[in-house]
Amino acid sequence: MRVLGVDPGLTRCGLGVVDGAPGRPLRMAAVGVVRTAADDGVGARLVAIERGIEAWLDEHRPEAVAVERVFSQHNVRTVMGTAQASAVAILCASRRGLPVHLHTPSEVKAAVTGSGRADKAQVGAMVTRLLRLDAPPKPADAADALALAICHIWRGTATGRLQQAVAAHAHPRG
Amino acid sequence: MRVLGVDPGLTRCGLGVVDGAPGRPLRMAAVGVVRTAADDGVGARLVAIERGIEAWLDEHRPEAVAVERVFSQHNVRTVMGTAQASAVAILCASRRGLPVHLHTPSEVKAAVTGSGRADKAQVGAMVTRLLRLDAPPKPADAADALALAICHIWRGTATGRLQQAVAAHAHPRG
Repeated sequence: MRVLGVDPGLTRCGLGVVDGAPGRPLRMAAVGVVRTAADDGVGARLVAIERGIEAWLDEHRPEAVAVERVFSQHNVRTVMGTAQASAVAILCASRRGLPVHLHTPSEVKAAVTGSGRADKAQVGAMVTRLLRLDAPPKPADAADALALAICHIWRGTATGRLQQAVAAHAHPRG
Repeated sequence: MRVLGVDPGLTRCGLGVVDGAPGRPLRMAAVGVVRTAADDGVGARLVAIERGIEAWLDEHRPEAVAVERVFSQHNVRTVMGTAQASAVAILCASRRGLPVHLHTPSEVKAAVTGSGRADKAQVGAMVTRLLRLDAPPKPADAADALALAICHIWRGTATGRLQQAVAAHAHPRG
């Protein structure tokens, strides 16, 4: 299963593609960041993010997209940009019929480090280890995007199995 | 000048097209709402909003788009949907090279009623009067979209003139 993880942001939108399945080694296919200039208008920045994500979807052909779930209890200015960038990522994936899953930051941290309160360094260290990289991906947004993809491969599949089991139980003759 | 006003929302995205210029009578060209079902996923809802806005841009060919500026001090769940829908509106307009302007709710209320603290009924009544309609447009999101377009025709043009004056002053020989 190939997953594109998106750590949304107007200034830096982290992107990471991971191949894997639960119980199998993970493989990083690509990692990077779409950057936009703070002195551009929000419209130009959203268009640039759309182009960047479209190019990644074209090139890497993921089967699913995992996007960080945005909460509004953080800094007001930052959270609006994050919500807007995440909307563009969700839109690009959904337009192609790709399944989109949202994971909270604590779900992602718990998935890759075992603790929902892990710090950036710990997430970066585990992403490096799990993907057998030489050094932690930089900037942190890129590492977070890979962590999202890993979280989705592990959690998403488990959730999928659980849903299948529940559905089978609910419709035993279905 | 023809302006599309967008009152962004996931459940109801208000759209209103107004023709006008400062000091001239205003004319409503179109008003409506794009609705999406609450039980659809956010991706499907954003795709539906994109399609709706694209259809309006194709049909009505506005020269500018005015979108309500979203603040995050309101209800957490609502504001995220509003921010996502507004991102789609900004993206659709910017992709076509249309100028996008954001106006705060109090700017819009002040423009059409004279008070930044006017209530929905007052805004609806003034929109009805200014556009010489038989009754206030419903739902309120549709009336708010028309108010945004009116606000932009009056304020946007004033701002444009001010910017031209400042630019002319800064570069007197330019």
